[in-house]
Amino acid sequence: MTPESIRALFEQVRKKKLSPDEAVEKLRHLPFEDLDFAKLDHHRPLRAGMPEVIFGQGKTPAQTAQIFSRLARHGGNVLATRADEKQFAAVKKKVRGAEYRELARAIVLQRDGKKYGKGTIAVVSAGTSDIPVAEEAVVTAEAMGNDVEHLYDVGVAGIHRLLANRGTLTKARVVIVCAGMEGALPSVVGGLVGAPVIAVPTSVGYGAAFKGVAALLGMMNSCASNVSVVNIDNGFGAGYVASIINRL
Amino acid sequence: MTPESIRALFEQVRKKKLSPDEAVEKLRHLPFEDLDFAKLDHHRPLRAGMPEVIFGQGKTPAQTAQIFSRLARHGGNVLATRADEKQFAAVKKKVRGAEYRELARAIVLQRDGKKYGKGTIAVVSAGTSDIPVAEEAVVTAEAMGNDVEHLYDVGVAGIHRLLANRGTLTKARVVIVCAGMEGALPSVVGGLVGAPVIAVPTSVGYGAAFKGVAALLGMMNSCASNVSVVNIDNGFGAGYVASIINRL
Amino acid sequence: MTPESIRALFEQVRKKKLSPDEAVEKLRHLPFEDLDFAKLDHHRPLRAGMPEVIFGQGKTPAQTAQIFSRLARHGGNVLATRADEKQFAAVKKKVRGAEYRELARAIVLQRDGKKYGKGTIAVVSAGTSDIPVAEEAVVTAEAMGNDVEHLYDVGVAGIHRLLANRGTLTKARVVIVCAGMEGALPSVVGGLVGAPVIAVPTSVGYGAAFKGVAALLGMMNSCASNVSVVNIDNGFGAGYVASIINRL
Amino acid sequence: MTPESIRALFEQVRKKKLSPDEAVEKLRHLPFEDLDFAKLDHHRPLRAGMPEVIFGQGKTPAQTAQIFSRLARHGGNVLATRADEKQFAAVKKKVRGAEYRELARAIVLQRDGKKYGKGTIAVVSAGTSDIPVAEEAVVTAEAMGNDVEHLYDVGVAGIHRLLANRGTLTKARVVIVCAGMEGALPSVVGGLVGAPVIAVPTSVGYGAAFKGVAALLGMMNSCASNVSVVNIDNGFGAGYVASIINRL
Amino acid sequence: MTPESIRALFEQVRKKKLSPDEAVEKLRHLPFEDLDFAKLDHHRPLRAGMPEVIFGQGKTPAQTAQIFSRLARHGGNVLATRADEKQFAAVKKKVRGAEYRELARAIVLQRDGKKYGKGTIAVVSAGTSDIPVAEEAVVTAEAMGNDVEHLYDVGVAGIHRLLANRGTLTKARVVIVCAGMEGALPSVVGGLVGAPVIAVPTSVGYGAAFKGVAALLGMMNSCASNVSVVNIDNGFGAGYVASIINRL
Amino acid sequence: MTPESIRALFEQVRKKKLSPDEAVEKLRHLPFEDLDFAKLDHHRPLRAGMPEVIFGQGKTPAQTAQIFSRLARHGGNVLATRADEKQFAAVKKKVRGAEYRELARAIVLQRDGKKYGKGTIAVVSAGTSDIPVAEEAVVTAEAMGNDVEHLYDVGVAGIHRLLANRGTLTKARVVIVCAGMEGALPSVVGGLVGAPVIAVPTSVGYGAAFKGVAALLGMMNSCASNVSVVNIDNGFGAGYVASIINRL
Amino acid sequence: MTPESIRALFEQVRKKKLSPDEAVEKLRHLPFEDLDFAKLDHHRPLRAGMPEVIFGQGKTPAQTAQIFSRLARHGGNVLATRADEKQFAAVKKKVRGAEYRELARAIVLQRDGKKYGKGTIAVVSAGTSDIPVAEEAVVTAEAMGNDVEHLYDVGVAGIHRLLANRGTLTKARVVIVCAGMEGALPSVVGGLVGAPVIAVPTSVGYGAAFKGVAALLGMMNSCASNVSVVNIDNGFGAGYVASIINRL
Amino acid sequence: MTPESIRALFEQVRKKKLSPDEAVEKLRHLPFEDLDFAKLDHHRPLRAGMPEVIFGQGKTPAQTAQIFSRLARHGGNVLATRADEKQFAAVKKKVRGAEYRELARAIVLQRDGKKYGKGTIAVVSAGTSDIPVAEEAVVTAEAMGNDVEHLYDVGVAGIHRLLANRGTLTKARVVIVCAGMEGALPSVVGGLVGAPVIAVPTSVGYGAAFKGVAALLGMMNSCASNVSVVNIDNGFGAGYVASIINRL
Repeated sequence: MTPESIRALFEQVRKKKLSPDEAVEKLRHLPFEDLDFAKLDHHRPLRAGMPEVIFGQGKTPAQTAQIFSRLARHGGNVLATRADEKQFAAVKKKVRGAEYRELARAIVLQRDGKKYGKGTIAVVSAGTSDIPVAEEAVVTAEAMGNDVEHLYDVGVAGIHRLLANRGTLTKARVVIVCAGMEGALPSVVGGLVGAPVIAVPTSVGYGAAFKGVAALLGMMNSCASNVSVVNIDNGFGAGYVASIINRL
Repeated sequence: MTPESIRALFEQVRKKKLSPDEAVEKLRHLPFEDLDFAKLDHHRPLRAGMPEVIFGQGKTPAQTAQIFSRLARHGGNVLATRADEKQFAAVKKKVRGAEYRELARAIVLQRDGKKYGKGTIAVVSAGTSDIPVAEEAVVTAEAMGNDVEHLYDVGVAGIHRLLANRGTLTKARVVIVCAGMEGALPSVVGGLVGAPVIAVPTSVGYGAAFKGVAALLGMMNSCASNVSVVNIDNGFGAGYVASIINRL
Repeated sequence: MTPESIRALFEQVRKKKLSPDEAVEKLRHLPFEDLDFAKLDHHRPLRAGMPEVIFGQGKTPAQTAQIFSRLARHGGNVLATRADEKQFAAVKKKVRGAEYRELARAIVLQRDGKKYGKGTIAVVSAGTSDIPVAEEAVVTAEAMGNDVEHLYDVGVAGIHRLLANRGTLTKARVVIVCAGMEGALPSVVGGLVGAPVIAVPTSVGYGAAFKGVAALLGMMNSCASNVSVVNIDNGFGAGYVASIINRL
Repeated sequence: MTPESIRALFEQVRKKKLSPDEAVEKLRHLPFEDLDFAKLDHHRPLRAGMPEVIFGQGKTPAQTAQIFSRLARHGGNVLATRADEKQFAAVKKKVRGAEYRELARAIVLQRDGKKYGKGTIAVVSAGTSDIPVAEEAVVTAEAMGNDVEHLYDVGVAGIHRLLANRGTLTKARVVIVCAGMEGALPSVVGGLVGAPVIAVPTSVGYGAAFKGVAALLGMMNSCASNVSVVNIDNGFGAGYVASIINRL
Repeated sequence: MTPESIRALFEQVRKKKLSPDEAVEKLRHLPFEDLDFAKLDHHRPLRAGMPEVIFGQGKTPAQTAQIFSRLARHGGNVLATRADEKQFAAVKKKVRGAEYRELARAIVLQRDGKKYGKGTIAVVSAGTSDIPVAEEAVVTAEAMGNDVEHLYDVGVAGIHRLLANRGTLTKARVVIVCAGMEGALPSVVGGLVGAPVIAVPTSVGYGAAFKGVAALLGMMNSCASNVSVVNIDNGFGAGYVASIINRL
Repeated sequence: MTPESIRALFEQVRKKKLSPDEAVEKLRHLPFEDLDFAKLDHHRPLRAGMPEVIFGQGKTPAQTAQIFSRLARHGGNVLATRADEKQFAAVKKKVRGAEYRELARAIVLQRDGKKYGKGTIAVVSAGTSDIPVAEEAVVTAEAMGNDVEHLYDVGVAGIHRLLANRGTLTKARVVIVCAGMEGALPSVVGGLVGAPVIAVPTSVGYGAAFKGVAALLGMMNSCASNVSVVNIDNGFGAGYVASIINRL
Repeated sequence: MTPESIRALFEQVRKKKLSPDEAVEKLRHLPFEDLDFAKLDHHRPLRAGMPEVIFGQGKTPAQTAQIFSRLARHGGNVLATRADEKQFAAVKKKVRGAEYRELARAIVLQRDGKKYGKGTIAVVSAGTSDIPVAEEAVVTAEAMGNDVEHLYDVGVAGIHRLLANRGTLTKARVVIVCAGMEGALPSVVGGLVGAPVIAVPTSVGYGAAFKGVAALLGMMNSCASNVSVVNIDNGFGAGYVASIINRL
Repeated sequence: MTPESIRALFEQVRKKKLSPDEAVEKLRHLPFEDLDFAKLDHHRPLRAGMPEVIFGQGKTPAQTAQIFSRLARHGGNVLATRADEKQFAAVKKKVRGAEYRELARAIVLQRDGKKYGKGTIAVVSAGTSDIPVAEEAVVTAEAMGNDVEHLYDVGVAGIHRLLANRGTLTKARVVIVCAGMEGALPSVVGGLVGAPVIAVPTSVGYGAAFKGVAALLGMMNSCASNVSVVNIDNGFGAGYVASIINRL
């Protein structure tokens, strides 16, 4: 049911071709989905500045390029996560302005440069191996119109490195913390700042790290009350959540 | 939005107090939920004969009795699962016709005696300890208008007991199989019949049975293709699924 | 022991070559399996239209082709699941009529076009990555003589896409729902329809999806009572269960 | 090292009793912790309106009352979570203004009535059994100065109940969603709103619900990008995170 | 179908009341179970000396006594495992000869004193807390007609205690080893003897012992090739397996 | 300490060069290991006919060949499990008599043809995919001097195939059962025979089979009391345990 | 074999009643364990000051008292862990000098006051709920002759509390860190000190803490290289390990 | 804040350009991290002889060589763990003195030959497959200035091999034990020695070994009180912990 079809119904009533009762009955039996037109508006104000997103992993370069170029027609920013250089090469041929963010393994087409975020988002990583996940969060937050500062390799076993950079943390409006292994960093950061902390467990580690499970459990049980958690290696999700918080 | 309020909208259009365009706009901005009146009918033909159900566990006798008597006003069958004798005593005071099915730990108010099921549902249990779960399935299927036959204590380590009762199995239109420990019975039964088999892992067992997990995994990996599985100890769910299949 | 050999025994008794006691003794010592002739008939009415099935994964093209062509001699439909194009090429050389269903990763030889299913089976998938599993269910159900409708990429985070297609769901006699990640779709679909819902967790997702475990647990705990579950990625099993239900 | 002791050091330098070099050396060897005075201020602006919190579980009524009354001296709001009526009785004797929020199992002393939150926090629960966790979130958010609206028993198997209340959801600045069993509700809600969603898995369910693990995994794998997760049954944490977001 | 009924069938054929064809048809349609008489003999030689067994846990004293006395009528040994003193008191009233084996938590009625086992079964336990499981194995093996020697509290952290008792081990025909915590003892014992070792993980331990899972995994991965494993705390099963091996 | 060195000690005492006390003291301080000569005899009678065994997986062809030829010098049978054709080629060059058992993925040098086992060992597999594990058990048992019969593809979903071959099972002195997926076959076989059953879970299956965990749990919880279990895919271990039982 | 029996053997050789060869043969066939007298000395220097230890949990007051008083006869310190006040009352009646350490849930008889430890052991706990485990470590270390300092409630979410007490940490020779929930504290402490850190996960927490598993995994994956881990809640083990290190 | 900047502050006070109060205020508002210069000294005495360490896995030869040569400039020992021959070739070109320890998969630049350890560290492995992990511990301990003795292939199923080498164990000041499969060896070794035992679970094994989890659990539950545990395959960590203990 498009607005047109509903309008037609009203038109029929106005023209007395249908009684109101008959129209109600018709409406009742129209497929539910036809009222869908009413729903799409709700998110509009929030959706401004949202990038179109592709999960690149498992897609061929050709598929990635095709989807990317189709999404690029919408006029906003486009982001392909978990993408490699071959996928980028294919995209680049179709979409001139696309850029490859190597550390983040992401392809970005940045056209909307407006700042939607009201403050800075700090992205923190425990070790150098966590950087790809952290950078995915950075790229996502930037594509969603945020100022981002990052602070890498400040794991808890060298707490002075973290403390030496407290300034960056305390001035951020939202903080993203990426950590593998024991996943302790979000608790420490959470205790240092008053801002919301989005914790991202990474699959960094070996043995009893269980590909991020140890870090995930650590973060779920954080003794800092301002911490909430997204999926293992989900840098995109963290960047997304932080961005919508930073718009508030 | 009740049918009345929509009718009023049409009335206004008919009376030319609103143009069709204005009406569409109003409709668009009406809260979505007001169209809810249109949705409830879909299930009606299927809902005939469905009992009202209460999950008794964790509720006080007073709470159980109150909910039970309220649901009893609808006129159909009422079923309280995981209920004990104290809860039954409280229900009995308010609802004379309620009966306690001890093995099933269920309170039943059976008023609609119509047979909605087209064939027989066979309920099979591996051991005597699985009987409470099996009986919950029996009571549920009966309350939903089915003929039920049961076959208990026919576990796979004494396969002749099962084979000796193949007649009951092969004439059933749907089969429910409850088993704890290794949960192997659904596979064997699934191989003996052509009917759909609903497998219910039970928490019977100890040690590496892990409260039904071993049985659950066994059933998920059944080498018989006609087996699907419900939650551990979920006799109600099995009875419900079997009943809606038996109505087809 | 064929019926003939038993008849010969009776013949000997009639001819007084054996006393009844001797015959009983002989019967007792005959291998058990000889009575097997009595068992095979039970499934016959149900077996009509059942395809012969090969699990292709891990088999060489040569092995697949050999088994496929042998099964093709039975005259019914033949289905090879989890098969790749190389396996198909080998099969095609031996069995002209075989077709490759790429999305489903299945080889099909469809010779029996009879409709055994009484209604439509709807196959629903949450995301595009779930399509291979969903298509395996589709191909299976079609090879077993069913009308199938599919509805893809209607995950719960965009509930309007699902609601917009409620018509397809509500008119199906059985519904198959494939979903990875949080596996929430069967619960929502289960709430929208009165028909039995076969849920298939898929291994789609990453991190805490644990290759389908998160989806499997979600489905086992579905708050919709008409949902039962098959193994992770088991599109074939879902198609099979749905087909035997649809024949009832 | 108090400010006084540092001031004394400067005083000595001014009086030329110490050279700057000697003073630096002294400072270097002062215990690190003495600089602690400088750290406590950072959170002050954020800490305004934060309640003092006690985790009541496992504490005796006497212990609870003692801690509660001591914290009450600070002048702000005091909150004891997971507290029972006996603990409340003991608290009430010492702190007249304390109130017991039965559904939330919480004791609250609300003295600071200022609204620190800029918008409304919506608290949603899937089933009635999730209400204690949801109410813990409600009480926490209220004690932290927020307007809270709640929406209970709107689980995904009856999606119309949720849709019928979309208004409440879409006008909230932050949404908390509590769900046990399959934990699917946050994904659906996340798809309906543009606001950040804090998901709380609850230990509601049985069998393969594994005391909240199924719900937790479901939420970690949410296909909605605006969802982050706190620990199982951690209504307090969700209320806390939502509150600090709502202050931004 | 008893031998008599089959004999009657042959009799009818001999008397020409039935043609062989009719008899075959009758036989075919006789319930399958009627041929069951042919199956029960197989185990007879092995079954001699097998005790009747009751799993006492979860049964009321009255239930236990009733089942025990009924089984006692068969004339052989009767064994109730996981039974407490109340259950014993009830049994004792009905079955005078029953005895309570306190350490094993078992009730035994030993009437058949014949030695079925050809050698000695050694039962070894790692710690004193494993003794109830070990004693259950002892009582089972004795009730099945074996000479049993036991060797308790010889855990691997004091390897000299074990070595000092090698004589007992090396002269046993079958060895049962019960251990909780790290479950290392079967590997060490397995290396010391050439006999088959039945390993029983016990739920002794705390923390990462996970109620016997650590011990179970340890035993499954034993580097000694003569070790096989039964369920956690399954002293009965170990005693049973050892007994049937000792009869060979 | 060799027997010679101890003899020398006694010689010195006899020659009065040492007093008994001095000799005891010397003995006490001799390294413990010198008494080791006394230990190696215990297993001798059992060790006759034991093959030398190499775990081939992860070894290079050169390494495998080197170890194999060195062990071949001992004169008994040599067995390399988990070996591929390249490893065999390398072995063959050094040890002429070595043979490759393809299905079992094993290299065998069979020189001792004596039958050490007193009866037949039956090796049963549920599906065709379990055959490599079953064959490893067969090869091991044969190399240890046993008559072996095998029975493959008799999974529980087609129980008649198993029953049709009961003869093979009931005449075996020990039974090995290999099964993946739900691992139900040992329970059924255990119920059909009185002999000890060694169950081998295999990693056959997908999804919730968890690489053999489902089968392992099923077997640990077998309702048949004569079943004990070895590690996942451990065909060698099962063959070894069965062989030492068959020698008793 | 006692020294006496060996001496007798030498005596016989000296007296020519046995030839050296015969003596060697006799020795060879003596039970292995008789040489055990030579083994017990090795630990003596280390054993000085080691307390006798009882694991109190699950023992009756009478049992505890009986064992305690028997061990008290040895003259050294005696320690009963996981003991309650009833057990203490029973012990106290038999052993006057026994004291109850309430926080540690331990009964101590301290008679050997010698300092065996060369430095101080620091015992750190993350929260107040971890104190019972920490105190068990304290009591153990004290009973083994160590100076102990403790530092409680210095969890990572309030890192300044920890830093403010660095002095205590850096002067310790060994550090024990007890933490539940996310178990992050050992990593932070490990980074602050150069001494060995013994980490004790505690079962403190709820939900995804999984009774100490989250903390255990966190500690196993510590990014600080000087951390090793003992079992969940194993304060005794940590105290023991730290004590033997502190003696070095 | 460098020492210089603080000195400047004192200079200003001395020159009366700032009052002591103003200086304190300035100090208070200086970023916390500027005081970091004061922290680095604490570990200095302990840090002498500590090698610089690179985790080689996942790094390219070029990256490894670059980091290695940069660290080599510090003048101490440099260690790259989990490094292959290609990485070594690249390192060798830049750093002449680097050596490859093949068994340990480590690159070592040993320049500081001083013995920091006071006694010997014994490194024990259960099987030959555990040697790479054991050798990583050896190389680490040697690079940290320790005498190391190793004892390989002394698993618990052949306990005499271990006992025959007790001398090596009992004279060690610290013992490292590496074991996969059931992980039982640390318990046995722990019982034989009085020294601290560092247990390293290895990922050696298959099936229910779960890549080291079985061994890890076994070690966590060790019945020997002198055992603490590091992560699966973490030979480096064990060598590190043992080294810092051996310096005490």
